[in-house]
Amino acid sequence: MGTRFDVIGFDADDTLWHSEDSFHAVEARFVELVQPYVREGIDVRAALRATERAHVPVAGYGVKTFTLSMAHAAVTMTDGRIPATVVREVLDAGIGMLTEPVRLLPDVPEVLADVGRDHRLVLITKGDLVHQTRKVTTSGLVHHFELVEVVLEKDVDTYRSLLARLDLEPSRFCMVGNSVRSDVLPLLAIGSHAMHIPYPLLWEQEHIDHDEDVDELESISALPARLR
Amino acid sequence: MGTRFDVIGFDADDTLWHSEDSFHAVEARFVELVQPYVREGIDVRAALRATERAHVPVAGYGVKTFTLSMAHAAVTMTDGRIPATVVREVLDAGIGMLTEPVRLLPDVPEVLADVGRDHRLVLITKGDLVHQTRKVTTSGLVHHFELVEVVLEKDVDTYRSLLARLDLEPSRFCMVGNSVRSDVLPLLAIGSHAMHIPYPLLWEQEHIDHDEDVDELESISALPARLR
Repeated sequence: MGTRFDVIGFDADDTLWHSEDSFHAVEARFVELVQPYVREGIDVRAALRATERAHVPVAGYGVKTFTLSMAHAAVTMTDGRIPATVVREVLDAGIGMLTEPVRLLPDVPEVLADVGRDHRLVLITKGDLVHQTRKVTTSGLVHHFELVEVVLEKDVDTYRSLLARLDLEPSRFCMVGNSVRSDVLPLLAIGSHAMHIPYPLLWEQEHIDHDEDVDELESISALPARLR
Repeated sequence: MGTRFDVIGFDADDTLWHSEDSFHAVEARFVELVQPYVREGIDVRAALRATERAHVPVAGYGVKTFTLSMAHAAVTMTDGRIPATVVREVLDAGIGMLTEPVRLLPDVPEVLADVGRDHRLVLITKGDLVHQTRKVTTSGLVHHFELVEVVLEKDVDTYRSLLARLDLEPSRFCMVGNSVRSDVLPLLAIGSHAMHIPYPLLWEQEHIDHDEDVDELESISALPARLR
């Protein structure tokens, strides 16, 4: 067939389906709930982000860590003046994200079917095992993938061991995703290829400055042509 | 060598290291914190268990789900009378579990070294990806294992796909663990072997009634002889 790659790896959140917009919506609800109990001069969003940054190394990525961070930050930034029932509302807003239906991005099933004709496909996502698995299985997309991996961190070591498991030369692998930090730079570092598809929102902790030339697509529908 | 099995699978929590005793200690602290705000006639532990049972199918196993359940239950069973600062103490007690040092059970490193001479070893644990990974890597035991799998549920499907991945006949695999529900019965169902090592405490949700004959060891130190 003369394809450039044997295996295409896909990120999931904000690459195949919407995710970050839901965090934004819940964060807006958090601000609404907490603001009335906060003294003047407190930056509610900044305090939440700082709490999250402290929790992620210990508790990992995902909705449960976000929810624990929100509840903790709500008490701290209000000096405990927030009623416990409002803390419970914060908890419910977070926990509710775990059962939100998957909302696919445009053209995703068609692109996977197309690309899957000439390539083996794998899904590589980080975050919460139970939540990511629920999204993958309820999405109706799982049959496209030879392998679905929920990993702790998408770094050079993770991708190296994945390629070893697939018994694949780095140059025959291409990763597709919305995060330059997680889906692009580690791949370039190990001699694989990567294509960046920006999503309108990017989680603050995924921001990264870099000098590398990055292959960019406007949307996933441009992928099949780019792979030919 | 004439060994009975090629690969031995080990459960982690309460098989290689203590885990459930720490949940019990934090639950006792939870009761202490919440009891003063609870009306007469409320069973604090039963209410916590019920909240946990509701959350596990959505949020999965592990410390983060337990912590979210504690915080939620604390508000509900006190009708919101609990101060938010006490809810934060509940959150801190739970989150603190994520960084507790691993406490190995007796003889574990020696037994793994011994059994590992004649068998390939794999570690199969369910629960929280980041927490289980932290425990495995900080335990100093990770080099004994060819594969470390953190899974969502230890059921027939999980074990079948693991054996496929190891390219192994079911009869050549033996699982070792403290839960009859997770570490024994699914293995017997697929034609593998299993050895049960009871731990003094068992999480309520792991209790199961069964008629099967279960191969039982008093402690892990009896394992090498039993495998010969």
